[in-house]
Amino acid sequence: MDVLLTALLVFTVAASLAEQPPNIVVLFADDFGYGDMASYGHPTQEWNALDDLASEGLRFTQWYSGESLCTPSRAALLTGRLPVRSGMIPGGEKENRVLGPTSKNGLPQDEITIAELLKTKGYATGHVGKWHLGINANTATDGAHLPAHHGFDYVGTSLPFSNVWGCDDTGVHEKRPDNKVCFAYHNTTIFQQPINHTELTPSLVRDAVGFIHDHRTDPFFLYFAFAHCHVSMFSSPGFTGESARGVYGDNFAEMAWAAGEVISTLKSLDLANNTLVFFTSDNGPHIELCLEGGSASLLQGGKSMTYEGGIRMPAIAWWPGKIQPGRVTSQIASTMDIFVTAAKIAGVDLPTNVTIDGRDISPILFDVDAKTPHDFLFHYCSSRLMAVRHGPYKAHYYTQMLPLANYTTVHCTNGSPHGEFFQGWACYGPTVTEHNPPLLFNVEADPSETYALNAAEYGDVLAKIAAAVTAHKAALKPRPPLLGVNDAHLQPCCNPPHCACE
Amino acid sequence: MDVLLTALLVFTVAASLAEQPPNIVVLFADDFGYGDMASYGHPTQEWNALDDLASEGLRFTQWYSGESLCTPSRAALLTGRLPVRSGMIPGGEKENRVLGPTSKNGLPQDEITIAELLKTKGYATGHVGKWHLGINANTATDGAHLPAHHGFDYVGTSLPFSNVWGCDDTGVHEKRPDNKVCFAYHNTTIFQQPINHTELTPSLVRDAVGFIHDHRTDPFFLYFAFAHCHVSMFSSPGFTGESARGVYGDNFAEMAWAAGEVISTLKSLDLANNTLVFFTSDNGPHIELCLEGGSASLLQGGKSMTYEGGIRMPAIAWWPGKIQPGRVTSQIASTMDIFVTAAKIAGVDLPTNVTIDGRDISPILFDVDAKTPHDFLFHYCSSRLMAVRHGPYKAHYYTQMLPLANYTTVHCTNGSPHGEFFQGWACYGPTVTEHNPPLLFNVEADPSETYALNAAEYGDVLAKIAAAVTAHKAALKPRPPLLGVNDAHLQPCCNPPHCACE
Repeated sequence: MDVLLTALLVFTVAASLAEQPPNIVVLFADDFGYGDMASYGHPTQEWNALDDLASEGLRFTQWYSGESLCTPSRAALLTGRLPVRSGMIPGGEKENRVLGPTSKNGLPQDEITIAELLKTKGYATGHVGKWHLGINANTATDGAHLPAHHGFDYVGTSLPFSNVWGCDDTGVHEKRPDNKVCFAYHNTTIFQQPINHTELTPSLVRDAVGFIHDHRTDPFFLYFAFAHCHVSMFSSPGFTGESARGVYGDNFAEMAWAAGEVISTLKSLDLANNTLVFFTSDNGPHIELCLEGGSASLLQGGKSMTYEGGIRMPAIAWWPGKIQPGRVTSQIASTMDIFVTAAKIAGVDLPTNVTIDGRDISPILFDVDAKTPHDFLFHYCSSRLMAVRHGPYKAHYYTQMLPLANYTTVHCTNGSPHGEFFQGWACYGPTVTEHNPPLLFNVEADPSETYALNAAEYGDVLAKIAAAVTAHKAALKPRPPLLGVNDAHLQPCCNPPHCACE
Repeated sequence: MDVLLTALLVFTVAASLAEQPPNIVVLFADDFGYGDMASYGHPTQEWNALDDLASEGLRFTQWYSGESLCTPSRAALLTGRLPVRSGMIPGGEKENRVLGPTSKNGLPQDEITIAELLKTKGYATGHVGKWHLGINANTATDGAHLPAHHGFDYVGTSLPFSNVWGCDDTGVHEKRPDNKVCFAYHNTTIFQQPINHTELTPSLVRDAVGFIHDHRTDPFFLYFAFAHCHVSMFSSPGFTGESARGVYGDNFAEMAWAAGEVISTLKSLDLANNTLVFFTSDNGPHIELCLEGGSASLLQGGKSMTYEGGIRMPAIAWWPGKIQPGRVTSQIASTMDIFVTAAKIAGVDLPTNVTIDGRDISPILFDVDAKTPHDFLFHYCSSRLMAVRHGPYKAHYYTQMLPLANYTTVHCTNGSPHGEFFQGWACYGPTVTEHNPPLLFNVEADPSETYALNAAEYGDVLAKIAAAVTAHKAALKPRPPLLGVNDAHLQPCCNPPHCACE
């Protein structure tokens, strides 16, 4: 009788899982640093809904982005592949490391996104927020590279290109927004130019919550990419001026509110126990922007660099009833793992004709004893392999220039930046230092990358890493770089030639 | 009937509280930094019993030590007073900022310690671990300044003077320990010279647990001052080589185990609901000691300095059933507050003939809406007022020298220090910079003290602080400095003239 009952239960659970794979939600922050959350140690950032998410889920302390800038990092998230494989890098040393409003290229159509993969299993797929993987290909209105063409059935309020310094609508940094770089879409249609930041996040939330409601009985995949916490800083009334930390804190508080609305929707619809949520960031904080640039905590460097501050991310996995609440893991994971883990959990086979760099981290999610699947992790800056992680060690072949000691006085007044500025943006050229032998750190003992190890004493480690690099490079089939090709005719414009509308 | 029942319950609770005031335990770390714990954001330090304590209690993010070095900081803890009031500072600019083995002076007898205060209410008082407030006054064996003469009825294994670099018994930094600075006491009797570090922490735990067992039916005050995590680094078998973080992590793990033994004893004896436990550190990490010196996380500076890294401490308050678990507060608190809060909770009147700098923070412990009682907090380096905290602002009148950029290569190999070294120890002299107008930071927005505010725009804040300083100095009655007076005849020695014993 017991055996029969057990068998029936197993069958029922299996059938139910087979019928309804879990929902998957990715909450993706912009330029948000390792040290920006209270639960990651920021002393005065207020505890918020994302910290609650960490308390209810699993918090990673060694989670890495696929790259240190928006476009390549987001390509890595959606494809599970290094950007050098998808072409989301600049050619040669031209160094335009992100797509712009008039870029001709975007994420190639033959790259398989998580959305496309999950659709094969019947998932409803939705996206709201920042895209940054291309807009138009041949005309100013074709939207050929937008998320609708990469597997997202539903696309709500969308920022195909990042809000930037030039979109400041507060009058603090710029007199007025530069319409050419500031526009918002609904799916493939531009509807607002310049963006009204006050309306933006509530609009993203409304669309995301609507998508969840509409698909409450389907399995769904939601990719919610926040506009926060990119400069220039903005937040809606109700958040502005509320954080002890200042504008960055206000900004983050609004993002956390948005994340909280998604989570409370999942809970209120009784979907929490069948939904895996990931939260992470595209790259580290823009540290050159003074107090409007986020914090990497004790990590060195920030956005655009392969020091830990540029690539180590806050990251949370949440699945009530499946992931033990309040755990912290220092197992190495990557944003590229989301692709593979989502496939695993949804029961979809991975594509076999392309190299996937991500790994299945579902064992880490569910088992406290599981170890990282990453023996080696390759950190690129565009086409250049900068550094390799192996166990506790990280070998830098190249390092970028850190902000000079006087930048705080030259570039900031009262913690506010005078201009948009990167010290270590370049992957090539005079601001990059080559290291031979590689600059070696034990980043578990020395997360700040302060105390270089004596290469002569670590010959075995360096040899293992060198062998892995040789094998990696031999097998690598890079796609020709696609960034840096611009055509002024592709400029998104809601109301030619004025390019202004509401 | 309900009213009567309520009245009876109130009476019962009140009577029980009147009969049995709560136990108070202070767990005090050595040279332990703001960023050393997983719950404070260290990425690879393993989660341990002290993080569990934080999860079960209240974690402070703006808690300040009374000073940035051992002796004055511990005087501030025990008296609730700035060290400038108790004489636990050096005279003039002689700069011997801590007591040594042959120091003639110690904490003055007329200073009232928490132990003495709580004894007036019938508390059993116990101390194990590091003291550092004086040893002998007239002979090498009188022990006139030891804890037994400052209100501690029970004193177990005791380190009257800190273990130091010279006590390295691992052979890593020194060939052999310097017996003159390495000795352990049981109460007022020296019993081991040099110290056997492997036996030390288990011995402290045994004594602390024994004290709790012996006084399980009394109200008690236990002051457990760890030898960890001071250099040189040591840990017992079972901890050595276990932490991903290296020797500091091993060291901390043993301290956390010791703290955990105290907590589990309280739980097993059913005392947890009637015991208030504080955990904090005497001062920031000794950052000049490479990876053996702890982490201040994103805070600047460390031990011996009045930058935040030197004085902002990890701090936890734990009282099951009274303090809501898992809370985090950014309300400003001080180690000196323990004196006043303990008195309040025990129902003891504060002494009225001396100035107490601590404040009652019990409202912060029990009420999420309570605000800090500190309108101004004065940060000293010996007799010099260095900086003042007021609301989110901190005005530096003087700052100390930070480690030079090249110290990592000059002083460290593979993260291990070549010698004991302080860059910014001095309170006077050429390594100290005066700031007029004061160097002003908003340390809530800018905890790293990186972006100085423009003094001209913050005249009102600086004026308020200046007025508070004037009033503070006018009312201050400093005691003549007592540090720096040495007599070689006071050298603790277990077996003259060999000074070696087991």
